Amino acid sequence: MRWSATLIPTLRETPAEAVAPSHRLMLRAGLIRQVGSGLYAYLPLGTRVLNKVVAVVREEMDRAGGIEVLMPALWPIELLQQSGRLDAFGRDLITFRDRHGRPHALAPTHEELVTRLAHDALASYKQLPLTLYQIQTKFRDEVRPRFGVLRTREFIMKDAYSFSADEAGLAECYEAMREAYGRIFGRCGLDCIVAQADPGAMGGEGSEEFVVPSPFGESSYVRCEGCGHTANVEAAAAPPPEPEPVGQPPELREVATPGMTSIEAVSGFLGVEPEAMIKTIIYVADGRPVAALVRGDHDVNEAKLRRVLGAESLEMAGADVVEKVSGAPVGFAGPVGLEGVETVADHAAAAVAASVTGANKEDTHLLGVVPGRDFEPDRVADIRYVTPEDRCAACGGDTRLFEGIELGHLFRLGTKYSEALGATYLDGDGREKPYVMGCYGIGVNRIVAALIEGGADERGIVWPPGVAPYEVLVLPLDLSEERIASAAEAAYEQLRKAGLDALLDDRDERPGVKFHDADLIGFPLRIVIGKGYLRDGSLELQVRRDDARTEVAPGEIAGVARRKLAELSVHNEQGS
Amino acid sequence: MRWSATLIPTLRETPAEAVAPSHRLMLRAGLIRQVGSGLYAYLPLGTRVLNKVVAVVREEMDRAGGIEVLMPALWPIELLQQSGRLDAFGRDLITFRDRHGRPHALAPTHEELVTRLAHDALASYKQLPLTLYQIQTKFRDEVRPRFGVLRTREFIMKDAYSFSADEAGLAECYEAMREAYGRIFGRCGLDCIVAQADPGAMGGEGSEEFVVPSPFGESSYVRCEGCGHTANVEAAAAPPPEPEPVGQPPELREVATPGMTSIEAVSGFLGVEPEAMIKTIIYVADGRPVAALVRGDHDVNEAKLRRVLGAESLEMAGADVVEKVSGAPVGFAGPVGLEGVETVADHAAAAVAASVTGANKEDTHLLGVVPGRDFEPDRVADIRYVTPEDRCAACGGDTRLFEGIELGHLFRLGTKYSEALGATYLDGDGREKPYVMGCYGIGVNRIVAALIEGGADERGIVWPPGVAPYEVLVLPLDLSEERIASAAEAAYEQLRKAGLDALLDDRDERPGVKFHDADLIGFPLRIVIGKGYLRDGSLELQVRRDDARTEVAPGEIAGVARRKLAELSVHNEQGS
Repeated sequence: MRWSATLIPTLRETPAEAVAPSHRLMLRAGLIRQVGSGLYAYLPLGTRVLNKVVAVVREEMDRAGGIEVLMPALWPIELLQQSGRLDAFGRDLITFRDRHGRPHALAPTHEELVTRLAHDALASYKQLPLTLYQIQTKFRDEVRPRFGVLRTREFIMKDAYSFSADEAGLAECYEAMREAYGRIFGRCGLDCIVAQADPGAMGGEGSEEFVVPSPFGESSYVRCEGCGHTANVEAAAAPPPEPEPVGQPPELREVATPGMTSIEAVSGFLGVEPEAMIKTIIYVADGRPVAALVRGDHDVNEAKLRRVLGAESLEMAGADVVEKVSGAPVGFAGPVGLEGVETVADHAAAAVAASVTGANKEDTHLLGVVPGRDFEPDRVADIRYVTPEDRCAACGGDTRLFEGIELGHLFRLGTKYSEALGATYLDGDGREKPYVMGCYGIGVNRIVAALIEGGADERGIVWPPGVAPYEVLVLPLDLSEERIASAAEAAYEQLRKAGLDALLDDRDERPGVKFHDADLIGFPLRIVIGKGYLRDGSLELQVRRDDARTEVAPGEIAGVARRKLAELSVHNEQGS
Repeated sequence: MRWSATLIPTLRETPAEAVAPSHRLMLRAGLIRQVGSGLYAYLPLGTRVLNKVVAVVREEMDRAGGIEVLMPALWPIELLQQSGRLDAFGRDLITFRDRHGRPHALAPTHEELVTRLAHDALASYKQLPLTLYQIQTKFRDEVRPRFGVLRTREFIMKDAYSFSADEAGLAECYEAMREAYGRIFGRCGLDCIVAQADPGAMGGEGSEEFVVPSPFGESSYVRCEGCGHTANVEAAAAPPPEPEPVGQPPELREVATPGMTSIEAVSGFLGVEPEAMIKTIIYVADGRPVAALVRGDHDVNEAKLRRVLGAESLEMAGADVVEKVSGAPVGFAGPVGLEGVETVADHAAAAVAASVTGANKEDTHLLGVVPGRDFEPDRVADIRYVTPEDRCAACGGDTRLFEGIELGHLFRLGTKYSEALGATYLDGDGREKPYVMGCYGIGVNRIVAALIEGGADERGIVWPPGVAPYEVLVLPLDLSEERIASAAEAAYEQLRKAGLDALLDDRDERPGVKFHDADLIGFPLRIVIGKGYLRDGSLELQVRRDDARTEVAPGEIAGVARRKLAELSVHNEQGS
């Protein structure tokens, strides 16, 4: 391709609205333009990268035995109702009535439909296992689109669904997908961490995420410095604390805490550390009130609490419910004497030897509260977020928190959807059984952003060869010099004939502008044709990643470029 | 691919709801399943065909100099408002409010956005011409989805947009697209007719359609038996008639026609042919009433009438307006004495020497009405649909009407969008000028349906090799016979290694079932391994299109198959 024949509108200025480096660089390098909140148009270079990532994903899904299908994004809303996910997706879901008044939705993922298709089209256990996948545009009404293409309202997703006869079959499909994900991210030059995850709205029995660390990721993870075990904080287990040494049981007594409704206020006023306090948070779970008790320095993990309660819905109670349950205004609830409400204490809260809690009385707290003596929680369980102080749940090692971009997600769905939708197969004995399912997603656009977040330097993007918009840029420095112009044409033709993906910068621009754009866009290789060529007839091959420069004879340029690209690819797949 | 590892749910019965052959066969051959009204899931075979068609489209667009982009489907509605197309698309447009209450639409085509992008990203005339294209899913709330994937609410469209400095530049871009369309449909094995068309909601200065004749097409065309000139009836010019010989001018008189409000009733009652009558239809154009006069055997073409009037909106008047304008109930309007309303007569109506018309008086018609003597239309123009009786507008030859499937559409937009959106470039003298634009669409899913409509026989689909789900089926007839099973595996491996797209029917099914499915799905070639192989060690290569059979030595099967496929492709591109 010739630069003049395509559309590469690089920007000199960094758009003020862009915070994340990938967002800034995709705008500046002319990959995307914003159309609306969370809506982007991919310009020619961005589209090329997207298509290359899609090709890698498709190849690896096929290699893993996945079978491609294409399901509609537009659904009659009944399809989502059958599984109960209409509520789970809530306002993220885009819905409308068609011209006949029938409600429709743009499906956020395709479990219900693919399950129905499998039930209709599969006849026998002999056809299992089967993994169907599609690469399709998804629409979600994100509450807060941001960071360029990292969180948008329209994006390309690869979603795959496996159907197996039993758990062992699911395990095989799951492993095949997990390995394919490793290859996909490796080929894209991404060094992913696999983290234990929370299944969220998908449901099911467990899940993992492929994540790359980035301050502009929207998920938090905890990673063990010792064994490397990593988990999304939504899912990370908080190990129970060592029991505290039991001393003289303290006396239970009331203390006036006028207007002090926060842990910080009470802690400061009484001179008690938050670790020695118990927070009592009132929730409404499936319509009934529940009190969650966590230590003052901990936070309730609602996903965990919901699972412990086995509740479909969980939300924090309003002031009216809190007052009714505790008999006091918000900020003074406590476990002692709390009646008519289920109490769930976190392990750490139940282990505080003597704590401060709300007194269920306005402007009053209790000192010397002893779990087991002064109150007995209905359940003790892991219901809190981990903190950096927690030891690794697997090996007891030190942990650290980091932010990351979720690129892929694997879910063991089990029979959640097949049972809800009555999707069954006949086993070898002719008995009807529900499929054991898995589902597996990859955010294609996010891969592009993550590559930039991870690989850019102060000059611009550094693409890995496999997904670069072009592999090689031919950069003649002075087109008015006939010898340079014709050498550039010759090099470009040679590269193209060799099957390399080459771009010729045929613009009549100053060398500074051309080098600046080349650095900004980040083509893996560039072939500079300037004074050196006029002097000694050699071309200069420059590597974007490390600025290495090699003099190459014109006739050898395609071969040398090809070898260099192969080296760079190996480098990438091994992690940089 | 092995049959057992994918999902090919062929059906023995023809689904009752399917009328069009492509719909029936796509369901029966396991290419698609219906999800809702006008919504289809593409199963593995259907997806393979779709992907192959997309690949052909992409290759030819690239070859024609098109540059691929990907614009969002989801738009803030303001984008559509700027061009005034919000009304033009009406209820076909899917709209909704997002969670913040802001109105959004799923864009039916992308003129507004691409024009804005070009304006923002292009700097100078030196970058012109430029043709941007995308291959993207479109959503339209069709009033009457039908005929399987021929008319749906979600479909894949290739839409391209060209930006030129002037009309000559547009002509070049247009011609490049026109040639690319010829290659695309040729490679897909489709024998298209290029028809002059009506620009409709796109607007602009002229357009053409690529169409294949089919009774399940939704458009009507008129074609000259002599010169071959073809036009969509929406656009086809109706030539003015030869003047009738003028005889003795008849006397104008009233006749009672009680309750006779139709041409048929009046014609029968008075014994006058419809050709000797004039219909007067009252419309409302941009809010004002207009009377359209056509001969009794003709129909008003509203697209033509709208263009003649230069009106943005045009609709038939309600009974209240008709009564107010004509002074009589609906069915008795006529041109004589009609006041306060613009009258537009079709050429043929104005040429009737003596006609019957409504009398603007209940239950009354006029006989002996002479245009020019008894009324004078404000304008005489071509405002009717052509009929099979009309001569060719180009050469005067005989014409015939046919129904066809519109597969591609080319539009000369001119400056309609660039002027409405203020999209300009700087010319060589630094003056701002609006882009001269074209737009070019192809319905990808329709190509699949049209191939089936055109190529199927009584046994099933007959795919052209280039877009068949698999090129070759390896069909062992008795897998329990070890020699057959291993010969099938060997042939399959040989084909795969040769880069052919092969499917191995490894099902434990009776030969009748396997042959039936092979015919139904329509793989271009199949390699049958059965008794002949056991007898003399040869494989039988069968061609689906003509049932030709050849004995082939096992070691030569890939080479022979490849040659045969090449022959079939040439056959296809030349038209079958």
